Amino acid sequence: MNTLLLLALLGTSSPSEARRTPKPQPPTMEQGAADLLADALASTEAWSELRYLCDHIGHRLAGSVGLEQAVAWGAEQMEADGLITSLEPVQVPVWIRGEEQVEILSPLPRRLEVLTLGGSIGTPPEGLSGEVMVVGSFDELSERGAEAAGKIVLFDDPWVDYGQAVSYRGRGAVVAAEHGAIAALVRSPTPASLGTPHTGGMRYAEGVPEIPAVAVTLEDAAWMRRLVENGETVRVSLKLGAHRDGEAPSHNVVGEVKGREHPEQVVILGCHLDSWDVGQGAQDDGAGCVAAMEAGRLLAAMQVAPRRTVRVVLFANEEFGLSGGKAYGASHADELEHIVAALEADTGAGQPLGFRVDMRAGDTGERDEALSAATIAALEHYMPLLEDIAAVQLESSWSGADISPMVKKGVPGLGLKHDTDGYWPIHHTTADTFDKIDPTLLAKNVAAMTVMGWILAEMPEPLPRWNASAE
Amino acid sequence: MNTLLLLALLGTSSPSEARRTPKPQPPTMEQGAADLLADALASTEAWSELRYLCDHIGHRLAGSVGLEQAVAWGAEQMEADGLITSLEPVQVPVWIRGEEQVEILSPLPRRLEVLTLGGSIGTPPEGLSGEVMVVGSFDELSERGAEAAGKIVLFDDPWVDYGQAVSYRGRGAVVAAEHGAIAALVRSPTPASLGTPHTGGMRYAEGVPEIPAVAVTLEDAAWMRRLVENGETVRVSLKLGAHRDGEAPSHNVVGEVKGREHPEQVVILGCHLDSWDVGQGAQDDGAGCVAAMEAGRLLAAMQVAPRRTVRVVLFANEEFGLSGGKAYGASHADELEHIVAALEADTGAGQPLGFRVDMRAGDTGERDEALSAATIAALEHYMPLLEDIAAVQLESSWSGADISPMVKKGVPGLGLKHDTDGYWPIHHTTADTFDKIDPTLLAKNVAAMTVMGWILAEMPEPLPRWNASAE
Repeated sequence: MNTLLLLALLGTSSPSEARRTPKPQPPTMEQGAADLLADALASTEAWSELRYLCDHIGHRLAGSVGLEQAVAWGAEQMEADGLITSLEPVQVPVWIRGEEQVEILSPLPRRLEVLTLGGSIGTPPEGLSGEVMVVGSFDELSERGAEAAGKIVLFDDPWVDYGQAVSYRGRGAVVAAEHGAIAALVRSPTPASLGTPHTGGMRYAEGVPEIPAVAVTLEDAAWMRRLVENGETVRVSLKLGAHRDGEAPSHNVVGEVKGREHPEQVVILGCHLDSWDVGQGAQDDGAGCVAAMEAGRLLAAMQVAPRRTVRVVLFANEEFGLSGGKAYGASHADELEHIVAALEADTGAGQPLGFRVDMRAGDTGERDEALSAATIAALEHYMPLLEDIAAVQLESSWSGADISPMVKKGVPGLGLKHDTDGYWPIHHTTADTFDKIDPTLLAKNVAAMTVMGWILAEMPEPLPRWNASAE
Repeated sequence: MNTLLLLALLGTSSPSEARRTPKPQPPTMEQGAADLLADALASTEAWSELRYLCDHIGHRLAGSVGLEQAVAWGAEQMEADGLITSLEPVQVPVWIRGEEQVEILSPLPRRLEVLTLGGSIGTPPEGLSGEVMVVGSFDELSERGAEAAGKIVLFDDPWVDYGQAVSYRGRGAVVAAEHGAIAALVRSPTPASLGTPHTGGMRYAEGVPEIPAVAVTLEDAAWMRRLVENGETVRVSLKLGAHRDGEAPSHNVVGEVKGREHPEQVVILGCHLDSWDVGQGAQDDGAGCVAAMEAGRLLAAMQVAPRRTVRVVLFANEEFGLSGGKAYGASHADELEHIVAALEADTGAGQPLGFRVDMRAGDTGERDEALSAATIAALEHYMPLLEDIAAVQLESSWSGADISPMVKKGVPGLGLKHDTDGYWPIHHTTADTFDKIDPTLLAKNVAAMTVMGWILAEMPEPLPRWNASAE
């Protein structure tokens, strides 16, 4: 008996059975990655799915009919794609935008294009009005705090990056109210505008009066600043119908490809299915969802499953208080030690550049840079597999909002990193629409999610993680 | 007596008078251009004036309070700048935008961001609704004309250039109505959009039913096309309060610097003071006006006036039927032979690139390319004077709308040519605001208008023109 025949017989119960149904062997890491990459780049499935989601379901705010249609659609698609699909309940808050009328009353009456910030209260039915106080930062408001009482504070912080800009959107109303303001206007967090207001979430704080908060355009913020700098008194009126309306049931949508060797070890590919209530949620985060779903489809279509389980999770609600990710983290608390990595795509559909690695101490939730460095070192070896699409960067940074409740407990987090030049100007606006999606770049996003999903699910040892005993 | 003393005495009546008040000499062409260029680049007057016009007067549609405030402001500024100022009556049409509610009814109800086209009729108070027929061109509508009856035609012509795009805005309603359509939607004529509709003028035609016409965003046009291509029936409703309201009196604003040698020969520096009723009309055409006004101020401030008269004309109404330019051409019909050139600035405040030369046969109004070539040859000699601001191109092309009634009668026309990459996306939108103006580029625009005004007013012989006998 020669060696080849001996090898062929190993692992089979009899020579005849081995000839009839040769057990398929998993591809090598390299071959699997090459095949998946080629399939992802050749596929137009994600493109077609995103077109359907945008054009026929449309935007998908928590609590809306659109989100529930998207939940049903996501489950149906993944079922059809051969994934083991399930729905996991999530309660989501309901907020209604209602009427929006904001006007400069003086010195020159004009209607302003605005978007009420998500979660904001409305005004009394007759509206409210007041003098505008323009500040460039929280620090400036602190210094001039005594002037703010009874006024409408405009936060006109110049764009540096999204992280800085969004702090005014999130906390502006609270900080303004602490100084006695009656409403907050926030310069839209964007580097560019064509008369385009940007909505997004805001928060109130215990013990601080709730005041309405709206996003204004870069153009109107700049105008009000110039008027005030010129010594004019600017008066604005707001009539806003925004209100909260309790909670509604929704679902995280889950689709699994069971691992061949360690089915209990799970790699999560995540995104969020909800969007703001303007535009189509094409880049935020429709693109991330179809990239994760298509990665799931391609991995499910392999002749031999990856070593570990791959689980696509379409989180129900990220934009409006993160209840999808929070519910998932809570209901899977007992499983977290088996979640070997969570990879999220949620910064558009621009050129994928690589991955942000986000390793935290599970007891404090703090970033662990030594562990991030070790994880980056472990992944470096595989990055040549993504060289064809130039998505090879690895950096220690924030990963993704939906997976953050898990990542803070020590689950290794990764975020797909994009070129975001085209993303911030359309994010949370009426312009986040399917026409902005480049099919070639979308396919590269699919390829990046698929190949990284394969690497994480197939690498011989899982990524390092905070709690060694969890292995 | 030495030669220097002899020269100093020439042209003076007595030695004592010569010492007291030496008669100032005009600078050479080169020195005058260099001084004016330096003054223009150092001045912030145009910037300050444009800021006032945008922020404190705002948009200036024909028939609006804003236009009349701008007329008074323009005259006051030029008077203060030392120009001989006058107002010339113009009747302007009045059109009121009114309410605008356009919605997709099916397959997915959504409000659309639109701007009714200027001059459009409204709908009946209860609105109107119908199925959308999407066409990519007038040719496609002709081929499929039988389908249009009772429908709402969407002209979804892809952007090539403004000239092509604007033909659908201008004529779309007429062509659609000729095929029995009940309303026209026009893709906004722009290469880029962030959910941004563009208004602009449209026309009706004798004997063709008047139907409402609105501009939709690139995003919504693309969405409706995709839905229809996917086999969906798209139904839209329109409720528009637009209506015409007779005419109103207004004025062209004129400011002159009298020529020292040929005061009867006139160089016009033109622009239009009106704007659309959204945004601030900062680039269209506030920037052109302050460039022409500042050129007038700098030329008026010269110690010795240019050889010919320079006349700044702020035309009252370009956007809405050109009544400013038409009235000017008609009331100055007898003077046209003495108007040696008309230079207009009306394509924004981007980098000035040079000048479009527009020579017409005065009997037919047709472009005369041989004459354009001769004019370009005559100007080539002076273009090194504009080399410092790189505004040295000369090409045979259209000059400007306001001066076109004169140019068609044989007046040599010039248009300041710009880099328009940043212009078309904001043109006729809420985003045409002062924040988009770059002060350095605005100063270069002032320099281009001033130096070319100087060249045209100072060159020994005026430009060649159609009717030699008119010289």
